[in-house]
Amino acid sequence: MAKKTKKKGLTPRCEDFSAWYNEVVLQAELADYPPVRGSMVIRPWGYGIWENMQRALDDMFKASGHQNAYFPLLIPMSFIEREKEHVKGFKPELAVVTHAGGKELEEPYVIRPTSETIIYSMYSKWVQSYRDLPILLNQWANVMRWELRTRLFLRTSEFLWQEGHTAHASQDEAEEEARTILGIYRTFMEDWMAMPPVTGLKTEAEKFAGAVRSYACEALMQDGKALQAGTSHMLGQNFARQFGLTFQSKEGREEFAWNTSWGVSTRLVGGLIMTHGDDMGVVVPPKLAPIQVIVVPIARSDDEWATVAEKARQIVNTLRDAGVRADADHRRHLSPGAKFFEWERKGVPLRLEVGPRDVARGEVVVVRRVTAEGEARKEAVPEARALGETAGWLKALQTLLLQGARARREAGTHRGEVSSVEELGALLDEGAGFVYSGWSGDPDVEERAKDVRATIRLIPDEEFRSATAPTRCAGGGEARTEVVWARAY
Amino acid sequence: MAKKTKKKGLTPRCEDFSAWYNEVVLQAELADYPPVRGSMVIRPWGYGIWENMQRALDDMFKASGHQNAYFPLLIPMSFIEREKEHVKGFKPELAVVTHAGGKELEEPYVIRPTSETIIYSMYSKWVQSYRDLPILLNQWANVMRWELRTRLFLRTSEFLWQEGHTAHASQDEAEEEARTILGIYRTFMEDWMAMPPVTGLKTEAEKFAGAVRSYACEALMQDGKALQAGTSHMLGQNFARQFGLTFQSKEGREEFAWNTSWGVSTRLVGGLIMTHGDDMGVVVPPKLAPIQVIVVPIARSDDEWATVAEKARQIVNTLRDAGVRADADHRRHLSPGAKFFEWERKGVPLRLEVGPRDVARGEVVVVRRVTAEGEARKEAVPEARALGETAGWLKALQTLLLQGARARREAGTHRGEVSSVEELGALLDEGAGFVYSGWSGDPDVEERAKDVRATIRLIPDEEFRSATAPTRCAGGGEARTEVVWARAY
Repeated sequence: MAKKTKKKGLTPRCEDFSAWYNEVVLQAELADYPPVRGSMVIRPWGYGIWENMQRALDDMFKASGHQNAYFPLLIPMSFIEREKEHVKGFKPELAVVTHAGGKELEEPYVIRPTSETIIYSMYSKWVQSYRDLPILLNQWANVMRWELRTRLFLRTSEFLWQEGHTAHASQDEAEEEARTILGIYRTFMEDWMAMPPVTGLKTEAEKFAGAVRSYACEALMQDGKALQAGTSHMLGQNFARQFGLTFQSKEGREEFAWNTSWGVSTRLVGGLIMTHGDDMGVVVPPKLAPIQVIVVPIARSDDEWATVAEKARQIVNTLRDAGVRADADHRRHLSPGAKFFEWERKGVPLRLEVGPRDVARGEVVVVRRVTAEGEARKEAVPEARALGETAGWLKALQTLLLQGARARREAGTHRGEVSSVEELGALLDEGAGFVYSGWSGDPDVEERAKDVRATIRLIPDEEFRSATAPTRCAGGGEARTEVVWARAY
Repeated sequence: MAKKTKKKGLTPRCEDFSAWYNEVVLQAELADYPPVRGSMVIRPWGYGIWENMQRALDDMFKASGHQNAYFPLLIPMSFIEREKEHVKGFKPELAVVTHAGGKELEEPYVIRPTSETIIYSMYSKWVQSYRDLPILLNQWANVMRWELRTRLFLRTSEFLWQEGHTAHASQDEAEEEARTILGIYRTFMEDWMAMPPVTGLKTEAEKFAGAVRSYACEALMQDGKALQAGTSHMLGQNFARQFGLTFQSKEGREEFAWNTSWGVSTRLVGGLIMTHGDDMGVVVPPKLAPIQVIVVPIARSDDEWATVAEKARQIVNTLRDAGVRADADHRRHLSPGAKFFEWERKGVPLRLEVGPRDVARGEVVVVRRVTAEGEARKEAVPEARALGETAGWLKALQTLLLQGARARREAGTHRGEVSSVEELGALLDEGAGFVYSGWSGDPDVEERAKDVRATIRLIPDEEFRSATAPTRCAGGGEARTEVVWARAY
């Protein structure tokens, strides 16, 4: 389907990371631009990755006691306006339905930018007593936030996500839920995406509109910019108060429930691309790859084709029986070279080439999309061994990608004292990604840091903090806490 | 969560089927009314059924070569207006976004009522040659059709569905695709939902707005009304012409592609309820039940509770290991009776009761939600036997439900000559569901049949036709083909 683009090269990452990103998304057929401003079409290869992400996360949510449900796309304007901070954060980005069924509506609806308001209004109907709590629901849905500057996957007006919304009888329980989910997100990003994030707390200036506390996973991309990859919010009783979400406590008192909300989105696909991609294309971690092994039969004559195509089919069947997502590329009109090019661009972890001589020798040629130091990219291997070791190779590749990403994160992290916003800017200009520093807690420092395009990504969780806590604030003066600065997507 | 409704009885089906339906949807916690006109909230039990439907259908789509993708929610108004028949069908039901990002839009967008226009505009970008065909894509999405009279699951302004959209190089191939999908829908409805439909072709008056031919599955509900449960359309080149979806043929000619589109929606959940529900509540076919076996521990004292709760956990684990979706109801504040009531209303196929005496005897009490003739509803069974036979019982129950539904469909079917619209109306008044008759092919007969609230549901496929073809048209005169009439949802 992409003949027009197949021969195109990619701008190298070092030359223009942003151009590389756009090209790779289009050429790997992950997504495309529709004739709808700021939106995206997610093509099968991109959607296949998202489906695997969904499956993994959904299993984790369910294993921790959550269930899925579905709430309406349209929210009455008056609902969005009820929680003051919430509406301040979202109003500028709303898409508004004013007409429907051929008539002007009495009250306009907004397309959900997030669903706290509609969901907690339902919870208030369902909850009477502490026995009805907790409610632990999640929904997989599309949301809309009208954005001026969009990038495929990273920032689009419409995107797909999951949003969890829970209600609890106590603050402690809500706080624990918010932290549990943060842990699930981190595990998912490390174990499935091979994208190790730093976790921690958002500052007041950066937290979710309507939350008491926002936790987040921040991952470092190859260009040194941070990507907010998942957030988990302790909402306190802010929404419960506005929507009358009360319950009768064990002691018989009427109390407001405590809420959390949390989400990850198709933005994760963008994070995956910017974490692992190289100048040949995308690299998809095996656990998320829609196709983990592509088998390419190679032949000159029709006779040869019959042999190698049959062998390719056998190999695919054997691998599938072993639980490997394998496929064969049986297209006759494309040269082997064109196929190699396409599957490398799409980031399939392993390729098995099967030519007539390989079949005669009982061998296949194994080609790794990414190699460890000293590892051969391409080698001829006895077929039986290749079939037996494929699962192991995929596992090793998954680990290799995580190690690589972790090493890049560490190499891109600067720790130590930073005593001015200018110094912070200089460090980022020189290529630092995450800059750890002390912070006084004064939001004015965050305001001034905008001049060097830096934001506090997190007050990091304990395990990410520096061994020696910094004593000086990056805005000058004394530090009260350690923070992580970065330029962010 | 549903304490308020738990004690409520249901209106018997024979008294008021429509009231029964609404009550059962709310009381079984399948769905609820949100504060958004015509929309619905799908609660975890209803969504769990939908998820199982999705999984089964998705597997079948993928096994037949389809892939998933995602296209935008918003469609430019001018796109919807391009195919004349299409816009005529959908314009009255559109929800329109006129403002976004704080500004009035230059061109309004509509929330997709279906996605032919946006999808084929993308295909026209992706397809150059016959080698790029077929394209076999599906999306799982929400759509919006502003409805005046809504019913939970059956007809709501927003609903969830899948919509497949394919492009082919020849009419024959498109025709074959439309029929293949109809077959998949039928298999799904029979094997998973235990809801055996009649399949066939829609008349010109009833076909999809923009299609050349529409195929459909029509199922007979317990109240004798037909439910259109899935449709598959051969769109010809209608949309390809409007969106410039052309390809270069093998012979080097520029040709328009041939399209199909097809969908089933959350309406299926409504169909499932109206096919199997009884005066106690919903009955969910085992293959789709989020919980297939509910284990209820029964105890008076805390000591007894410790024993039976532990036994319940063991049983659940054993069943889960065997691939059965089992859960235990460990709530202490509800009586066993209240639990039985709740799970019966929700339609869990099997209940296992575990009391202290049962544990002492090594037995469990098995209670079937639905029984075959002569089968015990409730019996004490040695635990090991119960565990070993559960999978078999579920399978038998699935078959039993299909047989029951098929028998009802046959009992509700009238075949023979019908020679006037009045006669047709009388048959339907007397309780016939599907009335087979001859038809001249004249749309005026369909127009007149509206007086008796009857529509031609299908020109049935061969295997559903009567052994002796009717010779007279239900509108008078001579028949050219056999059709199936019904009153429909």
